[in-house]
Parts: sequence; C-alpha cells; structure tokens
Amino acid sequence: MTMNNAGGRRKAPTIHDVAREAGVSRGTVSRVLNGGHYVSPAAQEAVNSAIRKTGYVVNRHARSLITGRSDSVGFLLTEPQERFFEDPNFNVLLRGCTQALAAHDIPLLLMLAGTEDERRRIKRFITAGHLDGVLLVTSHSADPVAEELHKAGVPVVQCGKPMRSGSKVSYVAADDRDGARDMVRHLLSRGRRRIGIVTGPPDSPGGVDRLAGYKEVLAEAGIGVDERLVISGDYSRGSGEAATESLLARAPDMDAVFVASDLMALGALTALRRAGRRVPEDVSVGGFDDSVAATEATPALTTIRQPYDRISAEMVRVLLAQLGGEDPAAVILPTELVRREST
Amino acid sequence: MTMNNAGGRRKAPTIHDVAREAGVSRGTVSRVLNGGHYVSPAAQEAVNSAIRKTGYVVNRHARSLITGRSDSVGFLLTEPQERFFEDPNFNVLLRGCTQALAAHDIPLLLMLAGTEDERRRIKRFITAGHLDGVLLVTSHSADPVAEELHKAGVPVVQCGKPMRSGSKVSYVAADDRDGARDMVRHLLSRGRRRIGIVTGPPDSPGGVDRLAGYKEVLAEAGIGVDERLVISGDYSRGSGEAATESLLARAPDMDAVFVASDLMALGALTALRRAGRRVPEDVSVGGFDDSVAATEATPALTTIRQPYDRISAEMVRVLLAQLGGEDPAAVILPTELVRREST
Repeated sequence: MTMNNAGGRRKAPTIHDVAREAGVSRGTVSRVLNGGHYVSPAAQEAVNSAIRKTGYVVNRHARSLITGRSDSVGFLLTEPQERFFEDPNFNVLLRGCTQALAAHDIPLLLMLAGTEDERRRIKRFITAGHLDGVLLVTSHSADPVAEELHKAGVPVVQCGKPMRSGSKVSYVAADDRDGARDMVRHLLSRGRRRIGIVTGPPDSPGGVDRLAGYKEVLAEAGIGVDERLVISGDYSRGSGEAATESLLARAPDMDAVFVASDLMALGALTALRRAGRRVPEDVSVGGFDDSVAATEATPALTTIRQPYDRISAEMVRVLLAQLGGEDPAAVILPTELVRREST
Repeated sequence: MTMNNAGGRRKAPTIHDVAREAGVSRGTVSRVLNGGHYVSPAAQEAVNSAIRKTGYVVNRHARSLITGRSDSVGFLLTEPQERFFEDPNFNVLLRGCTQALAAHDIPLLLMLAGTEDERRRIKRFITAGHLDGVLLVTSHSADPVAEELHKAGVPVVQCGKPMRSGSKVSYVAADDRDGARDMVRHLLSRGRRRIGIVTGPPDSPGGVDRLAGYKEVLAEAGIGVDERLVISGDYSRGSGEAATESLLARAPDMDAVFVASDLMALGALTALRRAGRRVPEDVSVGGFDDSVAATEATPALTTIRQPYDRISAEMVRVLLAQLGGEDPAAVILPTELVRREST
C-alpha cells in the first residue's frame, strides 16, 4: 500500500486535496458542497469527480450546514456579566449576529464567561461538540480562549483583532488606528492642542491601535506626546470618569480628550461637569463606537462610528465559510467620523 | 418469566421502585445518588441494596450530575432581546442562577427567543439533548414553551407561576397576590382612595394575581373598583408611561398608582412629571420588584421586594433535584414592602 503523505501517516483527504485534484479553488469546492450556487456545471462536475477520486468525506460541520442540521452557533463573551448589560455595543452585536444566523435557520446560544472558572466550564461544553462554531467577543484580545478553541478544532471568529502574534484565528474588526487618526485630526481642526486620551485596556486594540493612531497624528502635527495626557480605562463608564479625573489633575490645561469608547466618554462628561468644565467650550470630548450612548449623552458625542451591522454580518459570513471548509480569514472594515455637539 | 408490571410490558425500574424497595423516600434515594450527603449509613446501605435488587440504572441526567459530567443548563428567556437589556430583573436572575450552578460546576447557556422562529430553533437545539435542563423566564406565563419542553422530557423550572391550568411544570414564584395586597394596604394607609393600577400583561401573574390582590384589598376597604383606574402594560418602561398617561386622562383625580413593575413605574414617574403632578404629594406611586430601577428613580420608589436571590437559588435547586430523579415542584416565596420616597 502506498502512503499518501511523506510523513508516513495516512491522513483523511481534505477540501484542499479535492480542490487540487479538481483544479479549482477551495471556495469553489465549498460552494459545491453548499448547494452548487454560483458554480459552472463544468466546475461542479470536476469537484464531484475529485470528491469520488480522493474519497473525501464532508466533515461534520460542513455536512450539517448542507443538510440544515447545524445545531447552533455560540456567542461567547469573555467579560463580566455586568459589562454585558452596561455596554450597549454587545446588544447591537448580538442582535446583528442573531439576525444573520436566523437567515440560515441557525440558533445562537449566548455564553457569558467573565471568570476563569466560567471559561473552563464553557470550553468543556463547546469542545464536547454541542456547538458548531463560536463568535467570540472580548475586550482583551490577548485572551487565550480564541486560540484554545481554534486548536481544539472549533471554528472561531473573533470580534476585534487578536493581539497574539501568529494567531490563525479569524477575526472581523473596525480599522481602529485609522478611526483614532480621524478623531485626533478632527480635534486639531477645532484648534485643540492639549489633547488627552483615555485608551482601552493595554491588551486590547482599543488600548494599542487607537493610542498608536493618536500618537501618529500628534507627531505629524509636530506636537510631542505628553505622557501626563495618556491614561487607560477598562471600557466601563466608571473607569472613564476616574481616568478623566486623573487627567484633569495631572494636566489642568487639557483642552480636548479622545475617549476610546462612548461608554467611557459618558464617564468623562460626568467628570468634566463636576470639575466645572464646559463641553465643548472648555474641553472637547470625542468618543469611539457611535453606540446609543453617544446620542443619549448631553451634549451628544462626536464619535467614530464602528460599523457594527457589517461587523456582525461579516463575523457570521466568515464563520459559515469556515464551517463550509474555508480557511480562516481576517476582515477589516472602515470607520467614520460622526460630528455632534461635544467637539 | 414473570412480568413486573400489570400492563404486561416490562419497564425499566425507576427511582420510585428503588425507594419502595428500600423503604425510603425518593429524596433519600436522590441524595444517595448525589453523593450520600445527609443520609444515614443504614439508609445508604438500604438504597444501594435496592439499586442492585431492582437493576435500577441511573438515568443520563442523574448520572451526569453525579459524575460531574453534566454538560450544561440553559437559561431560556422568551422575550425580545431589547427587554432583556432594558429590564434589570433579568440581569439579577441570570447572575443568581449562574452562581448557584457554578457551585455545581455546571455552565449556564443563555438563550433569547423572542420570536416564534427563535423558539422553534431553540427547542430543536434543546430537545436534541445539548442541555440537561432549562430554567425558563417569561413574562407570558401562558407561553406553551414550558409545556412543550416538559412533554419532550426536558426538565424545566419556570420563573413565575404557569397560567395554564393542570400544568405539571415546576416553578418558583414570589407571592404576587400577597405582594399586591401589601402595596394597596400601604397606599390606603397613606390616605389614598383613588388608587389606579398598571398591571402586567393579562396572561402573566403580574397581570392577574397582582390585579386580584388590588381588588381584594379595595373590596375589604369598601371601595368599589373603578375600571377607569385599571389598565395593563407590557412591563416595558414605555408602556408604563403610556398607561399612566391614559389613567390620568380617564381619572384626573387619581391620587395613587400601583404599577406592577419598577421599570413601568419609572415610566409612570415620567408621565406624572409631564402632567405636573408631584410625587408623592399629589400622586403616590408604588412599584413591584425592588430592582435597581427602584433605587435609581427620583423619587426613590416604594415597592414590593421580590426575593430574586432566593428565586434563582430555588430554581436551580428544583432543577437539580429533577435531574436527580425528583418529581416537579412548586415553590412560592414571600414578598416584602419596601418603603421609600414615592408614597
């Protein structure tokens, strides 16, 4: 018997083998497996022939997708339960993912795992095969959960860029750095020069990429970064309030503050009001997200719009593609400056 | 071979057979199966002997509970997603259930099923065996989901009393009628005589039992029920506002209003403020729940405390007992009047 693999161990043929044999892309094989839409009859014939020749067996996930037997997809939030209820972004993401999956008749199971114990229990449930794939939302992109699930063979798509280098996990993210650049340029255009920043946690793109964009634009404008004007929060409203209080104490001449989430920006408005600073007359405030918090704020927040509808739709699209045999993918979506009353 | 059953069909021995054989209660058998806590050595020996004699095989749920292999329990909310984020009661219930299950190392999966399609998909997932049992939260107690899952053999515990007569579904509820009586008596004690009520939906205990308690106390006090003072909401804040507006239009002399949830009472305060009525000087307002909405309201709400911590702990206790072989059970917990500034 001839071994197929140089390594000497016979491996089950994969969708890659079928694609090679048929002389088509993996995407074409996947489309054939998913019902043959947008595939020419010739390519369809080639793929079917290659499936017979290689002995390829559609994997559980792909098969269940084709047959409509996909049990469900999980929405895993590795944040404390309180954050889930406090932060309006999760509601929007969850609704978008639920709707996108409903079009495929796939139910969404929600899992809140804010503690190490909760994550352990949830991983046990997922890796036991009760879910076909996972949409992961975390504000800590160094979170090992994505890698752990990926290594266990569970299809995962993360919301936001993973911070671990060399990660092969799929993700969908807004362009954080570019959004931050737009906001800081806008604050400069309003004549502001002492611009503070409340970043997200240092292990999140909102803590790293948004800060990088801020520094880039200040450097372009010939303004050195004053470290007294840089502080981080944890995306909660309270942390935005405390951080802004610290900034005001360290740099009383601050004339603008870019806050890396709308919810933290609400806290910033509270701190400024208590300190007797008028917004935007004394201090301009810019947020990030364009969540309901931005429109409900007084004054309404100038912010950077994250396209949550597109983010959730893309997360579902990438996950279903993986279930259909495609390789992981990264999707970066553009942001947009939304001007309101706070700048 | 002798048949065990009069019906002629040999059935697998149940926990009832073991209990009868051992001469102990089913609860004792369950406790032995769950590790033998609170069981005398003699009873433990009798149960083990009866298990051997009857050939009883621990069922999947009970076994998985004993061996720690219980995959998970679901928290099913048959409400629109928006209500989940708006109403603080769900947060409290979810946290309580999560904590009570964590003590047993059981993860909780959250399922939001506000539409008929979502309920169909979620039922398919549950009845496929991916969850050992379900904690059901709904404001519509006539909701057929509980019965459907129960009939499909899925252990279910409902939060709130099922409105279907003859239901065999376990539930844990606060004493709605008694809570309503306490509130209306309190309003009478404040000298109020034109007391309106915003009930919950007519197919919920908050729509039926709380209204019944209101009517009882008015009858006791010799005050006839004026139907212009009775209206229902759907537990959302907006519905409380609209309902109170209608009450004021129909009965401008209303001097108190009992609102069947704190969230709706927030809406009532808004409507009263807009109508230029002072609370409590012109109109006393009483809520129900003692949720965070009650303490955050201006003025802080007098309300009826639902013991959510106990409710969630009891829901988990009853569900685990069912997984261990016990029959369904109903638990009614007392409420408490909490006086604040709105009455």
